[in-house]
Amino acid sequence: MFCYGGGSSRLGVSVPAMNSVQSTSALDVSLMDRAARRGLRGHGHVEPNPMVGCVGVDRDGRVVAESHHRTLGGPHAERLLLQEHGSSLRGGTIYTTLEPCTHQGRTPACTDAILEAGLSRVVVGCLDPNPEASGGVELLREAGLEVTVLQHSPSHELSAIFRHRVTSGLPWVVAKWAQTLDGRLATRQGHSQWISGPRSRRLVHRQRGRVDAILTGIGTVLADDPRLTCRDVRARRVARRVVVDPDLRMPADAALLKTLDVAPLTIACSEQSMTAQSARTKELIGAGVDVLALRRTGDAGLALTDLLIHLSAVHNCSTVMTESGPGLLGSMLRSGLVNEAMVFVAPTVLGDEEAVSAINGFSPATIDEGIGLSLRSMHRRDDDVLLRYGVSSGGAASP
Amino acid sequence: MFCYGGGSSRLGVSVPAMNSVQSTSALDVSLMDRAARRGLRGHGHVEPNPMVGCVGVDRDGRVVAESHHRTLGGPHAERLLLQEHGSSLRGGTIYTTLEPCTHQGRTPACTDAILEAGLSRVVVGCLDPNPEASGGVELLREAGLEVTVLQHSPSHELSAIFRHRVTSGLPWVVAKWAQTLDGRLATRQGHSQWISGPRSRRLVHRQRGRVDAILTGIGTVLADDPRLTCRDVRARRVARRVVVDPDLRMPADAALLKTLDVAPLTIACSEQSMTAQSARTKELIGAGVDVLALRRTGDAGLALTDLLIHLSAVHNCSTVMTESGPGLLGSMLRSGLVNEAMVFVAPTVLGDEEAVSAINGFSPATIDEGIGLSLRSMHRRDDDVLLRYGVSSGGAASP
Repeated sequence: MFCYGGGSSRLGVSVPAMNSVQSTSALDVSLMDRAARRGLRGHGHVEPNPMVGCVGVDRDGRVVAESHHRTLGGPHAERLLLQEHGSSLRGGTIYTTLEPCTHQGRTPACTDAILEAGLSRVVVGCLDPNPEASGGVELLREAGLEVTVLQHSPSHELSAIFRHRVTSGLPWVVAKWAQTLDGRLATRQGHSQWISGPRSRRLVHRQRGRVDAILTGIGTVLADDPRLTCRDVRARRVARRVVVDPDLRMPADAALLKTLDVAPLTIACSEQSMTAQSARTKELIGAGVDVLALRRTGDAGLALTDLLIHLSAVHNCSTVMTESGPGLLGSMLRSGLVNEAMVFVAPTVLGDEEAVSAINGFSPATIDEGIGLSLRSMHRRDDDVLLRYGVSSGGAASP
Repeated sequence: MFCYGGGSSRLGVSVPAMNSVQSTSALDVSLMDRAARRGLRGHGHVEPNPMVGCVGVDRDGRVVAESHHRTLGGPHAERLLLQEHGSSLRGGTIYTTLEPCTHQGRTPACTDAILEAGLSRVVVGCLDPNPEASGGVELLREAGLEVTVLQHSPSHELSAIFRHRVTSGLPWVVAKWAQTLDGRLATRQGHSQWISGPRSRRLVHRQRGRVDAILTGIGTVLADDPRLTCRDVRARRVARRVVVDPDLRMPADAALLKTLDVAPLTIACSEQSMTAQSARTKELIGAGVDVLALRRTGDAGLALTDLLIHLSAVHNCSTVMTESGPGLLGSMLRSGLVNEAMVFVAPTVLGDEEAVSAINGFSPATIDEGIGLSLRSMHRRDDDVLLRYGVSSGGAASP
């Protein structure tokens, strides 16, 4: 799910010795890169907390320790580092990708641990966006420590999901789809299995085990009867399945309903459908399904923002991955709710205007009016290409 | 245009010393990789000859020279190597990507030069497909040299265009297009400038300067009025522009006609159109245009195979790049005439079913019936992705 925007190669650099001739800031960036790379290990384990990584350098400039925030509720990266290596770090420097917290939450404040350890310098990758926890930089400076705040892009990205949720109240949405090279999800007859290869599909299962929710539309459920569970890989968390189903058309024998013991399920329908099908609704709720009634919106869909707020507020979801058809994906994009795209491009061309498009619902007149993306990374999986993009705000002209 | 299928990374290896502990065959491959990388320098200069690279290793196992076939009509790679370094190579080994020729063509036979130089061993990347020139391996073995023939994939690819033309009589066709991520060439209103970024467009101009012909359809001419010339880069050859124009609709003020002094132009029309518009045809021919009458085929197009044979036989074209719309590209693919695809994927989504597709004319019922491609390489150009594919025979189900 997570990737650095062009920073991944920089993370591969070896850490130069302190006594080599180079500017302090390049060294700081290099050590912060190392901290960020370490922080990534928390992906899927720490949410809704941000991923954080740390590197500790002793007073002689030797890297003596690294750590990361390992698990939600467990100690923060800084505290872990200092617990084990505090004595070697007296008078030294700590590199941390996120401003150390000042508040007692599930764990004690990291600033306290830093002050107790007698460090002389703290380098911070980015500031904490959470008003409850921020202020660490100021507090440490007041206590006489030298504090450097870098504008460090990998650190920002490491906490981007957290930052997004704190500032908008919305979960981070990753739109995942697999398409033919010519942008199709299925043939005109609806055949879609399999567009991408086994290695790509395995990667999708791995991602399912790292997100909080998987969102799809009733069209996909009716066409493919998916389970949307994480299989044959080690899951870090169990993702809630979420179906946008305005008219409550979910079949009684859907695989999603047969696997409620594996992962929870939310069905979002319209207020009208819930009223009209109250017996059906009761039955679903009785079976353990979270049924959510939403306002209809102009384009015959549902209020998707409200759905995401529900997932964040009620189910504590930080990351939602969409695995949907062109209509829902188009609606999500049009609503400005997509933060990232994860696109598998298969080595196949359908060459058919009537084959199913990846994304529908827009009608831009010019190329510039399309939805602009920024390429973050590209990977090869056999003959499939995995492209990851950031999605900028704005978007294609609506009909 | 040319790329190695997964071999490019191997070409980056450093050449190990002969005395290092490793099997002879791994060393042979490594040195042949070096020869193939060298051979690539001939791209655009040597056609219709194949690109060939050579490495010379003296009797003590030291790499003392490398060379490549530099220009059509000039000496072959082996002869160049031996001319300059023959004395150091006595008793040594020559690595050459293609079987040394046995015939006197524009230049004398390479086997003679090898025998004269007193080499003890020749390693060959792949055999010569041309019956007139092959037989070098046998001849050298009969003369007492040790000859090893590798199944060396980069060497095969280095001569793939030549091999294709020798065996099929057809030029190698590279289908180039730039699309949005969701597989569109233009908006529903036909707006397409610019889908790809300046670095990608510059690369296209570079490729135009390395091919023999650029093929497009009259639809693209009417929509974009392109020149299809190579601009702002150093051209290695001047590509003929070729327009598939069944009804002879080429406008009298087309940019293609205004640039006949820059590059030649072929217009392929139907036999009927040529007869019906004989005055127009005469005028075009008078202006220097090569007007070619072709049979109409079932799908209202023209006999494209005949067009390619004409380009090969009359204009000595080895490589043709298509820069066309979805219809012509679909026809080329349906006719099995495309050897390679070069696709620029732009960081934009149009999200519109009615936007112009990259390829049309097929109607596969299942994914497997689509056109299968094999990924050769991926490159990043700013936020554009350049994907290169080999195109397998067969193809998508026709209507």
